[in-house]
Amino acid sequence: MAKNEAPRTAITPTRQDDYAEWYQQVVRAADLAENSPVRGCMVIKPWGYAIWENIQRELDRMFKKTGHKNAYFPLFIPKSFLEKEAEHVDGFAKECAVVTHHRLIAGPDGGLIPDPEAKLEEPLIVRPTSETIIGAAFASWVQSYRDLPLLINQWANVVRWELRTRLFLRTTEFLWQEGHTAHASAEEAVEETMRMLDVYATFAEELMAMPVIRGKKTDSERFPGAVDTYCIEAMMQDRKALQAGTSHFLGQNFARASGIVFQTKDEKREHAWTTSWGVSTRLVGGIIMTHSDDDGLILPPRLAPAHAVILPVYRGDETRAKVDEYIASLVADLTAQRYGGREIEIEVDRRDLRGGDKMWEWVKKGVPLRIEVGPRDVDAGVVMVARRDRAPKEKASMARGELVSGIVGILDEMQKGMLARARANRDAAVRAIDTRAELDAFFTPKNEREIHGGFALSHWCGDAKCEADLKEALKVTIRCIPTGGTEGTPWEPKLHEDGPCIVCSKPGKGRVVFAKAY
Amino acid sequence: MAKNEAPRTAITPTRQDDYAEWYQQVVRAADLAENSPVRGCMVIKPWGYAIWENIQRELDRMFKKTGHKNAYFPLFIPKSFLEKEAEHVDGFAKECAVVTHHRLIAGPDGGLIPDPEAKLEEPLIVRPTSETIIGAAFASWVQSYRDLPLLINQWANVVRWELRTRLFLRTTEFLWQEGHTAHASAEEAVEETMRMLDVYATFAEELMAMPVIRGKKTDSERFPGAVDTYCIEAMMQDRKALQAGTSHFLGQNFARASGIVFQTKDEKREHAWTTSWGVSTRLVGGIIMTHSDDDGLILPPRLAPAHAVILPVYRGDETRAKVDEYIASLVADLTAQRYGGREIEIEVDRRDLRGGDKMWEWVKKGVPLRIEVGPRDVDAGVVMVARRDRAPKEKASMARGELVSGIVGILDEMQKGMLARARANRDAAVRAIDTRAELDAFFTPKNEREIHGGFALSHWCGDAKCEADLKEALKVTIRCIPTGGTEGTPWEPKLHEDGPCIVCSKPGKGRVVFAKAY
Repeated sequence: MAKNEAPRTAITPTRQDDYAEWYQQVVRAADLAENSPVRGCMVIKPWGYAIWENIQRELDRMFKKTGHKNAYFPLFIPKSFLEKEAEHVDGFAKECAVVTHHRLIAGPDGGLIPDPEAKLEEPLIVRPTSETIIGAAFASWVQSYRDLPLLINQWANVVRWELRTRLFLRTTEFLWQEGHTAHASAEEAVEETMRMLDVYATFAEELMAMPVIRGKKTDSERFPGAVDTYCIEAMMQDRKALQAGTSHFLGQNFARASGIVFQTKDEKREHAWTTSWGVSTRLVGGIIMTHSDDDGLILPPRLAPAHAVILPVYRGDETRAKVDEYIASLVADLTAQRYGGREIEIEVDRRDLRGGDKMWEWVKKGVPLRIEVGPRDVDAGVVMVARRDRAPKEKASMARGELVSGIVGILDEMQKGMLARARANRDAAVRAIDTRAELDAFFTPKNEREIHGGFALSHWCGDAKCEADLKEALKVTIRCIPTGGTEGTPWEPKLHEDGPCIVCSKPGKGRVVFAKAY
Repeated sequence: MAKNEAPRTAITPTRQDDYAEWYQQVVRAADLAENSPVRGCMVIKPWGYAIWENIQRELDRMFKKTGHKNAYFPLFIPKSFLEKEAEHVDGFAKECAVVTHHRLIAGPDGGLIPDPEAKLEEPLIVRPTSETIIGAAFASWVQSYRDLPLLINQWANVVRWELRTRLFLRTTEFLWQEGHTAHASAEEAVEETMRMLDVYATFAEELMAMPVIRGKKTDSERFPGAVDTYCIEAMMQDRKALQAGTSHFLGQNFARASGIVFQTKDEKREHAWTTSWGVSTRLVGGIIMTHSDDDGLILPPRLAPAHAVILPVYRGDETRAKVDEYIASLVADLTAQRYGGREIEIEVDRRDLRGGDKMWEWVKKGVPLRIEVGPRDVDAGVVMVARRDRAPKEKASMARGELVSGIVGILDEMQKGMLARARANRDAAVRAIDTRAELDAFFTPKNEREIHGGFALSHWCGDAKCEADLKEALKVTIRCIPTGGTEGTPWEPKLHEDGPCIVCSKPGKGRVVFAKAY
């Protein structure tokens, strides 16, 4: 390679050149999803959907272990339900899909029009979230303290009309889960809120290999209708924050709105205390932006649709049977093992394509291991193994038995390595900042596309006005008031220092996390 | 029991007294689902949803084994897409939810109204089925014969505005899967259509223990836009037919409407040949109506959310620890085993309720085995076991080890017994009928609620008018022209006899299945 020639990458542009466009190209090159003809709605393609299926399966297991059961509630919410909780309606009425008719008929110009005779008496809202419709069900399910706690989860699609959408990160329709629980006391509901926040944090770190800070939202970022919103916040490679999951303590607000009342042990009637919590297909965006490089997607093995792809190298028809037989037995030995509670999954790509094209396709799809098998490998009892966390052309010959006995260890090493690397990336961009000048400099790029900023740990007086001023000036928001997940980081001690508000200089307790965000 | 006293049943009314109401009461008593405040939409409660999750998991495995991959497409379909296929739009425009606005604002009387400023240029339809929106995606995914076959499945909610709804059987919103495939030739697409019909039939018989007839729909019952619709038809205990799954050969109709064109091996451009196939939460209704009795739900072990429930019998606090310890070790030994590829699942019901109430609750929920454990059982190393396929009060003492080593065999015997019983029930109500008078008598009840009729195997000339006349006169339709699943039945030879049409006496080939239907 000539000295002035840039290294060639599989994805153009690179992260440095244009991060937003790099993201779109990684999604496209990995064949994860695409925009649909319906404004703001995406098509999730098989490789992208398989990641979501893995996320679902693992989270579902964690929800069930913590005592939750799945159920399903209507897609539509009567307008009057949304109106019951004042803050809630303000938060969601602005961006919802409204169903007004239940039939189409031929119009005057031959095309179809909504049938005026089939206008609904009360418009229906396509659920943006289900607190109100689930609250109505809970009101009839809960009579006595014996019915509590009620621990329900729903896997569903929801719709929030968005003006600016981006695949996985912000789409008009998205897939998610929403937990909804009711409890006999505020303490139990708060405990549940924190338990599910911990489940999300554990999932993010152990499965997604994405480090997160757990914390509380400020009032201005609270879920409409909640008493307290907690969140996990991750840092993407462009140093922006991604809110990756939220857990809300709803107090008695929705119980009052929906009439969830129970008889206490001493025969009094009281409103239940409720929570809700959710994560969505946005997590797929988080995986992409935490790990991928300029050659495309890099998937954490625990969530990869396939742990490895086998690429047969055929040298003429006479060796084909031999290679295929070797592969079949290799697949059997590999898939007989489990990693992270899941059977090892292997794809065999026999498509008639040039070897190089095929190899790059799998690099871009982020499969953890690529295993080449040719006739000479069969004769020598070896395989050529390439790891997605190393340079794309780096590969090593390995005895067949060594791969079989070692694959679980290799995958686990990759998984842990990805978390460590993501932690190091994040920690390098966390900075305690005590002056407004430094904060301004931190969040001001030299040019439009410069990757800049990070998490600024600064003091805040608690006033929403200071928060709003900073948002106005720098497009920076308070991501959270940290409550956990920071132990052992180099910057953790800084969180406990008190000091003057970075905006108004009034005293602030501890530090909060300021960042630009998705 | 006095001679004239009716036996008491857990469900009122009984099947004989009022089958439709019995169904509602079984659903309610088993806590499967309930009507929601949204017209025609149901809430699927945890026990009902867990059955659906089991259906999903098993079918998904079968779809993946036959080479299909899951993906996800938008909930909304632009009106213009629905208009592309003429028959299709006629079939679905009449009963759809139409989204016309994307925002609510405060109206003159303070309540919310759709914001006139936020009216959509083109209304969106909440998908009643996804041929047109998936067709648009396929059109861009398919370029060459190398991209075929394209084998996709989607798990999703769909909406069809229904006037008369019934939990699980017919609801405005329901959950389903829809397979969508594209092929390079008509033969391959027909083969796929039949393959998936076989998958459905295998699933119905092996997992649901519900015998089905495979067959082809007449033109009047075809899916709007399909060339041929195939179905599986089951008989419920009221002798009505339930269409439990459909598989459509769509020819090139939707490929033409959506522009799915591929380059053939000899470099010509041709429209692809497509199929679609689906089953829905209706299957839960099929399970209920095939197996349940006047004491409530009976679940086939392969799909039951729990294979067994353990009911501890505590006699004072001093023996509690002993009983709990025994149960914990029993649960460990039972759940270490697998039945039908799934871990044995056990519920332990420790609620502080009267033993009889608890027992009846689990009878009504249809759990296959109830296992009682009291202090004396612990001392004797035994358990009391009751089977849901026997009389509710029949229970037998069994050595602990015998249960542990025998549970898989017991469950399998129950599963096979349920299929055999459902087959016998059905076959007793299948009759070859050759005169219109006999047909009229067969399908005319003595009183409004009499369980009557069944499957009439009769000749048909192939004319839609004869079909329509019978539907008008008797509310009887041709469920299918049988193509399989009938081998070994006592009435199978009758299917191959030719004879005069039961309506007009013109010649008919073979016999078709006439029945009243859900």
